[in-house]
Amino acid sequence: MYGEFELIARYFTRQPNDDGVLLGVGDDCTLLQPTPGYCLAVSVDTSIADVHFPAEAPAYAIGYRALAVSLSDLAAMGATPRWCLMALSLPEACEAWLSEFARGFHALCDSCGATLVGGDIARGELSVGVTVHGELPPGTALRRSGAQPGDVLAVTGSLGGGHGGLLAWQQGERDLDDPLLAAYLLPQPRVEAGQALRDLATAAIDISDGLLADLQHLREASGVGADIDVEALPLTRGLVERLGETGALHAALGGGDDYELLVSLPPAVVRQARQRLKALGVPLTVIGRLSSEQGVRGVPESVPSGWQHFHGGTP
Amino acid sequence: MYGEFELIARYFTRQPNDDGVLLGVGDDCTLLQPTPGYCLAVSVDTSIADVHFPAEAPAYAIGYRALAVSLSDLAAMGATPRWCLMALSLPEACEAWLSEFARGFHALCDSCGATLVGGDIARGELSVGVTVHGELPPGTALRRSGAQPGDVLAVTGSLGGGHGGLLAWQQGERDLDDPLLAAYLLPQPRVEAGQALRDLATAAIDISDGLLADLQHLREASGVGADIDVEALPLTRGLVERLGETGALHAALGGGDDYELLVSLPPAVVRQARQRLKALGVPLTVIGRLSSEQGVRGVPESVPSGWQHFHGGTP
Repeated sequence: MYGEFELIARYFTRQPNDDGVLLGVGDDCTLLQPTPGYCLAVSVDTSIADVHFPAEAPAYAIGYRALAVSLSDLAAMGATPRWCLMALSLPEACEAWLSEFARGFHALCDSCGATLVGGDIARGELSVGVTVHGELPPGTALRRSGAQPGDVLAVTGSLGGGHGGLLAWQQGERDLDDPLLAAYLLPQPRVEAGQALRDLATAAIDISDGLLADLQHLREASGVGADIDVEALPLTRGLVERLGETGALHAALGGGDDYELLVSLPPAVVRQARQRLKALGVPLTVIGRLSSEQGVRGVPESVPSGWQHFHGGTP
Repeated sequence: MYGEFELIARYFTRQPNDDGVLLGVGDDCTLLQPTPGYCLAVSVDTSIADVHFPAEAPAYAIGYRALAVSLSDLAAMGATPRWCLMALSLPEACEAWLSEFARGFHALCDSCGATLVGGDIARGELSVGVTVHGELPPGTALRRSGAQPGDVLAVTGSLGGGHGGLLAWQQGERDLDDPLLAAYLLPQPRVEAGQALRDLATAAIDISDGLLADLQHLREASGVGADIDVEALPLTRGLVERLGETGALHAALGGGDDYELLVSLPPAVVRQARQRLKALGVPLTVIGRLSSEQGVRGVPESVPSGWQHFHGGTP
């Protein structure tokens, strides 16, 4: 059994490979040197066991996913990830679990260019809060409020996998090679795609609460309506087989946890956007169009609305 | 019953009075403009109900205290508070509770010059994670590692109140005018004192784990030993009356949650340091001296060691 300081030292202190880290883990604060002339994008998300992820999920996936959820917010602004801080609470300090948790967390740090610069470990119900910091040139951030009538609506990757993977887990699926379970437990935050779309998209949001719920945030911020082509929705592989056609559609529209980007684009730049994302290995699919007529058309009624705490939404 | 978005809007979204906030709460990220040429001090702390504070404590105090704990880390670096993010999880969304919680949080924001720029609310066991950002000129941060043999050891404010207040709470005390309970539930982070000592102190740490435990961190980082004058320890008012002389001494040495600063100072600047802090209404008391002889002398044996999660230390 280790104390808090030993745990931090053992699993979460690595020599930062970032010359913006003036002083790393081990003092009262971390000292960071932001890039001159850039602005800072900051977000925090907390993942709670059996609310946001199954407590029995592999520790690797819990560490990876808690960071992915926060990095997805940076992706939606088009920011370049720099630094993150992690507040972990857990009922007991099991070394094997912590080692795997840290391995998942650091794996995503490495692939997204983020550095863990601070943390806090306490005893409590299993939960992980991650604060992320990204950078970008002033005036270039993708906001929710810039969409224009006439813009095309597009999504990265595929939809429904987050919700489908949750259901698969609940049905006993445990193979992380299952495409739905992988989408749910190891989502790939679209960090590079967000940066590539920074000068093309007029607005962006990440799909954490479900397509329709997040579209609503974007529509309200931009003051636009939308026509959706549900036939065009890119469904995650295996979704129809597991949920049937109606279930798959509902998962894609109303399920949460996809962590794809929903973006608006002037029609003239759609081809260019698709080419840039293709180079990154990320599909971009047009799913509708924005208009000055408020509301959403083209969506079947009785689709469950997105995930909201204290509302009892899906899942 | 409100949803997450309504809760955030209702209780935590205020017009930021800070022109460094380019985009406040309401998008995927907050956008911040750091002060050119300064570096950023960042820290996160999580406060969990019935681990770090009583679940039944007044909501005002829970909000205030969760922020105070994090601001204390900025104080210990000598950083000027700028921005904070709060991740709140709570079992149910009670409006009266949230309103009081937010009032306590914002009250301390206002008195310390911090702005709440982002947050996350989820359903779970009551806990509050607060990430704070402060700024300071490069090279001026107070670290744990700069203490020299021959330096004087001093503390701000008084000691033992945190632990004494916890015991008072457990004994049924509920009056926040009680000096011990106030020290425990409404600690004053020494933000101005930390800044005032930036060019005088050689090292600093905040006393969150208990004087001896935090002194050990400072000693290890600086490679020094210490002689303590226990007669000189400034005990919080009411501590001896409640705990007796031995209990009071143990609370001051080994109890946690005082959130005072422990600093090392060259003897020549002690008077100047005391004058600066006096102008801020903060006492500074010399409690010992550092030496090249490792270890700690002058402390009675059998003092409980400081607070550590997973070790079962005090309290």
